[in-house]
Amino acid sequence: MKFIHTSDWHLGRQFHNVSLLDDQQAVLDQLIRYIESNPVDAVVVAGDIYDRSVPPTIAIELLNKVVKRICGELNTPMILISGNHDGAERLGFGSEQMKNAGLHIISNFEDMLTPVVIKTESAGQVAFYGMPYNDPEQVRFAYQEPVSTHDQAHKLLAEKITEQFQPEQRNVLVSHCFVDGAIESESERPLSIGGSDRVSHEHFLNFDYVALGHLHQPQKKGEEYIRYSGSLMKYSFGEQNQKKGFTLVEIDENGFVSAEHVDLTAPHEMRIIEGELEQVIEQGNTDPKNEDYLLVRLMDKHAILNPMEKLRAVYPNVLHLEKPGMLIGVEQEMAQAKLARSEIDMFRDFFSEAQDSQLSQEQDQAISDIIKQLSQQAL
Amino acid sequence: MKFIHTSDWHLGRQFHNVSLLDDQQAVLDQLIRYIESNPVDAVVVAGDIYDRSVPPTIAIELLNKVVKRICGELNTPMILISGNHDGAERLGFGSEQMKNAGLHIISNFEDMLTPVVIKTESAGQVAFYGMPYNDPEQVRFAYQEPVSTHDQAHKLLAEKITEQFQPEQRNVLVSHCFVDGAIESESERPLSIGGSDRVSHEHFLNFDYVALGHLHQPQKKGEEYIRYSGSLMKYSFGEQNQKKGFTLVEIDENGFVSAEHVDLTAPHEMRIIEGELEQVIEQGNTDPKNEDYLLVRLMDKHAILNPMEKLRAVYPNVLHLEKPGMLIGVEQEMAQAKLARSEIDMFRDFFSEAQDSQLSQEQDQAISDIIKQLSQQAL
Repeated sequence: MKFIHTSDWHLGRQFHNVSLLDDQQAVLDQLIRYIESNPVDAVVVAGDIYDRSVPPTIAIELLNKVVKRICGELNTPMILISGNHDGAERLGFGSEQMKNAGLHIISNFEDMLTPVVIKTESAGQVAFYGMPYNDPEQVRFAYQEPVSTHDQAHKLLAEKITEQFQPEQRNVLVSHCFVDGAIESESERPLSIGGSDRVSHEHFLNFDYVALGHLHQPQKKGEEYIRYSGSLMKYSFGEQNQKKGFTLVEIDENGFVSAEHVDLTAPHEMRIIEGELEQVIEQGNTDPKNEDYLLVRLMDKHAILNPMEKLRAVYPNVLHLEKPGMLIGVEQEMAQAKLARSEIDMFRDFFSEAQDSQLSQEQDQAISDIIKQLSQQAL
Repeated sequence: MKFIHTSDWHLGRQFHNVSLLDDQQAVLDQLIRYIESNPVDAVVVAGDIYDRSVPPTIAIELLNKVVKRICGELNTPMILISGNHDGAERLGFGSEQMKNAGLHIISNFEDMLTPVVIKTESAGQVAFYGMPYNDPEQVRFAYQEPVSTHDQAHKLLAEKITEQFQPEQRNVLVSHCFVDGAIESESERPLSIGGSDRVSHEHFLNFDYVALGHLHQPQKKGEEYIRYSGSLMKYSFGEQNQKKGFTLVEIDENGFVSAEHVDLTAPHEMRIIEGELEQVIEQGNTDPKNEDYLLVRLMDKHAILNPMEKLRAVYPNVLHLEKPGMLIGVEQEMAQAKLARSEIDMFRDFFSEAQDSQLSQEQDQAISDIIKQLSQQAL
């Protein structure tokens, strides 16, 4: 059996005041065309379907169209969970009534414990458990257990789900969370401040596949079968080199799970272009993708009149302009000095200001070692 | 066959900064208990389900519970249309997927033309056509016809629906509009300014029953079978003497349609109490309904310290206070003079100001007759 794992659609998102809805629709059309030519047994969306808890009407209409096509016309069940951007109750209205039509919106703990079971000849019964996004406070309140971190919350919820396992079924978890050690992107909204949003992948080891949402870069974490599909499309310039699309998951008759990334391409990519104005304009004149959404970083060292206007004559969708080349004199030196300062330099500055003396050689070595350890852990 | 016709639930409404949600839930519980002991074949809600296009989450949760109970557990189909207070696209999400579970939300023209057909042994097939609320502009745009008033819009939409009639079916229309000559209440929001929102009941004569929403007073208009159920509960002090509840409609084997009003009572009624402070407080001490939502009209002629505080000691839910007794001197005389003036008095004033002469006796008689006619038509 095969299913599509996708997440972080963020329908209705704006980027530098530009609506991305047409791009989102185009990418979803590609997804639908893929299903038309390569039928699958289910489509899983691991949260952040909308960008806001009260999405704009046009985003609702787009989701409605997609659901009509996939569930209604292609007869492919969809399993959706709410993410931290979604309004769970709002998204969940009528979910009871939609189930028989193959649309499963899981937005509360009650529904979490009843899996969507898909029966196939090749892989038997596959149970999909949706764990809607919840703050630790909500989990503590619902289960009256001493839960104060995301990690504790996910441990508890995963245990509750595991209790429901049926021996004859394979088990897929759908969850929206930040697995510890995974790679962030600019366009995600932190689940909580200060790193307490991290969840160990070890809570998920009992499942046959874990379809994760929240992080926008496709990646696996901990095990081959614990994966982020990544977002539907790029949502920041920092994601210019990320692959975007969905994960195609296959479970064979022996229960062996494989997963591969399938590309989807937005009509407008998000890219960063660096160079002097003249070069950038020349390049733009022959750039077949000149309508992409761009951040242009102008390296010219002299002032330029109306650079945005000149750039938009060839690249109409320049959304942001940076001019690092135009920092002059002291400003430039300071900026460069700042860029050049490493963690150890900054700590030395801090120490000498706070203590009115320099680090001893031993102290300096100890701090250097700690910084090295920390940065290795982050990789 | 029997069905319930109700409308104007306005879930999520606030009244003088008090949330009415608990009252709305209590009244809907009564409705559900009625259905439990008196099964019906359908429940029709003729628009303004929510009070706002973006309803608060708690209102969505309440509707979800009601739907779960009526459609899911009592297996009674529900037919809902969007009203002028509802956000049609927002309310309509997933409607395609909900149909098979007996929840029919009709919020666009496409769905309008496909009736919900209920088959019963006693009355054969009854087709329910939902006409979602639309401005004339939306009708003009959708059908590319020269429509500029609500009346023209309803004429056109009713014609489009009539074309779908099947000879073996009875036809029920569900619509949210202002039928010309019907009685307004304070708590309705005008569909448009200046009276151009009125619709002739004659467009609806082809139907066997017309379940109307928008006006909050239960009433029939034009024909016995063209009816407003009125709102779920009172939404203004001006409605203190109105009956609230739903209309129970029955169609017998000969196609004969009868309708009767069934009362529902909110835990807090909305009432106006008039009197001097002392009297009102004395009455409050033994008033079994002292938690009602009240407008108190104090008739005392002298100033009173903290009247609200004194009143709320016995009537905790006094929401509004008027003190007509405390208008003094010229102000009082003017106010009383204004209150006392009838339409004919006001016309005489207007005429003498505009023409610099008095009405002749004949003119006076003619105007009196016209005013009398107009006020009789309104009844």
